[in-house]
Amino acid sequence: MAICGYGVAVQEPGRGPSALAFGVVRADRLPAEQQLLRIHGALARLMAEHRPDAVAVERLYFSRNVQTAIGVGQARGVALLAAAEAGLPLREFTPTEVKMATAGYGRADKRQMQAMVTALLGLPAPPEPDDAADALAVALCCLQGEALRGRLAAAAPAPARGRP
Amino acid sequence: MAICGYGVAVQEPGRGPSALAFGVVRADRLPAEQQLLRIHGALARLMAEHRPDAVAVERLYFSRNVQTAIGVGQARGVALLAAAEAGLPLREFTPTEVKMATAGYGRADKRQMQAMVTALLGLPAPPEPDDAADALAVALCCLQGEALRGRLAAAAPAPARGRP
Repeated sequence: MAICGYGVAVQEPGRGPSALAFGVVRADRLPAEQQLLRIHGALARLMAEHRPDAVAVERLYFSRNVQTAIGVGQARGVALLAAAEAGLPLREFTPTEVKMATAGYGRADKRQMQAMVTALLGLPAPPEPDDAADALAVALCCLQGEALRGRLAAAAPAPARGRP
Repeated sequence: MAICGYGVAVQEPGRGPSALAFGVVRADRLPAEQQLLRIHGALARLMAEHRPDAVAVERLYFSRNVQTAIGVGQARGVALLAAAEAGLPLREFTPTEVKMATAGYGRADKRQMQAMVTALLGLPAPPEPDDAADALAVALCCLQGEALRGRLAAAAPAPARGRP
């Protein structure tokens, strides 16, 4: 995988979500190990800079062939490693979950997804390239999950205290 | 991938190859990102300790399914990253190349491979588990390639010098 999209999004109480950063790490035309070095370095720097509450990646089920799956796995591997090194919790979402959370239904196409990401984040123009828009969609999906976790935690009764 | 085999082998001039270290990194029962953290850390320590001339990994073409291929790819990703971080050149060999180099033919089975690895490295007993024996076979294959490169370089005429 020579291009790795990323997106950093935040949701502050009482406001809509907004994008802090998005883009792609380009590592094409490099040997695989140099691609991984660049992707790992870029993601580690983004995590150090933004200190997100969680790191979210897409879970993949389908692939054209084994070589493609291994290439995607290699890039995922260094992304997961960067999250673990930074001590950040990891979240994984299927493409259907990401589409549900962003576009409201699980079979949205690329164009609908990009339009929804643009609208939800209040961006002046659709994020380019597609990989950056995809990454922001995963971030939005993660934000929804985190918000839900927060509401559930707030709604749960306080744990019973044992005797000292 | 919860188990990652490794093998460190050396061949000094006029002597047969020998094993400096071999074993497996066990990371089962951990979340994926913690597995990758452990595998990356262990491989980085081995590379720092032994400073090999090259790092060799097996190239995979087949997989039971996409999830398995992605899991293998993730582990490969952090291995390749460790090599790149250490500034070590990477070599990749197909399973057939590894079998050819170790057992002399490309369709050797696990048991034949283990016996040949044991004999070639002069080990007192077959390396256990299989993953460690497999890794040593890849190391032996790499040593053969390095020896061949050395002979080719020695046999090649010195490059013609241009005018200053």
